[in-house]
Amino acid sequence: MTRWTPPEQWTRLKSGHGCVICADAHLDENPFSYLVTELPHSFVRLARNQYMPGWTNVTLKRHASELWELADEELAGFWTDVARTARVLDDIYHPAKINYGVFGNLCPHVHCHLVPRMYGDDPTKPPNMTEEEVHLTMAEYTSIIETLRRQLAY
Amino acid sequence: MTRWTPPEQWTRLKSGHGCVICADAHLDENPFSYLVTELPHSFVRLARNQYMPGWTNVTLKRHASELWELADEELAGFWTDVARTARVLDDIYHPAKINYGVFGNLCPHVHCHLVPRMYGDDPTKPPNMTEEEVHLTMAEYTSIIETLRRQLAY
Repeated sequence: MTRWTPPEQWTRLKSGHGCVICADAHLDENPFSYLVTELPHSFVRLARNQYMPGWTNVTLKRHASELWELADEELAGFWTDVARTARVLDDIYHPAKINYGVFGNLCPHVHCHLVPRMYGDDPTKPPNMTEEEVHLTMAEYTSIIETLRRQLAY
Repeated sequence: MTRWTPPEQWTRLKSGHGCVICADAHLDENPFSYLVTELPHSFVRLARNQYMPGWTNVTLKRHASELWELADEELAGFWTDVARTARVLDDIYHPAKINYGVFGNLCPHVHCHLVPRMYGDDPTKPPNMTEEEVHLTMAEYTSIIETLRRQLAY
């Protein structure tokens, strides 16, 4: 079992000190994902691990650890970005349902996981995107990223 | 493994036909939860299963199955209700992090699961609120509901 970051360090992280996501959410590549595009309040990123096809993150540009820290326009804008990305994933993957999760248990910087859930999935299971590890070829990542980027441009 | 509702029936459910949440989200009690309070765009409900203490739902009043179906003010208002409820849960449970999940894989009516995550939890595990079944006494439910209701009134 992985342990939680100890309380003192966690409290610092929650306030943004040493936040890895602040440092790498805008980069073309980081250890976990590839940049798809920038939206008004967020960066959209495709996870390297595509065990659950279409797993995408929408990451708030500025640091905040919980939703109530956002001003009204920020909260509205962030969810507008999430909804826009979800609609595009729905068009591409035709899932039964999109799942939206804001967890941040490893890095408390507001980001929403978007996970297309397919008819073959067990609907009682929460999305566990890292239960297995599936990597694609660079050509496959590029193709998905370009499709997402094209559709998010509208 | 539980199977997904078959596509034809699922498509009807997504459009609201036969939606159980539409029928019972406003009731004092339903098979899954107790009503805490009504907020501008949602009903706040405490889950009967308190395996993960503080598991609460914020359920959109009207039927919609995905976030992009909501008008701008509705989307903003729903997430304002969620953020307000999350802050109250944070005050009561003092978790390391609040987890927010909009799944709807059994009933596709927009509702957000709010799950306080504690330092003793495994941060790599997504919140699995029904992994075990823990029921409280009626007096215990009432006490939590009253505390939530009192704090949500501000």
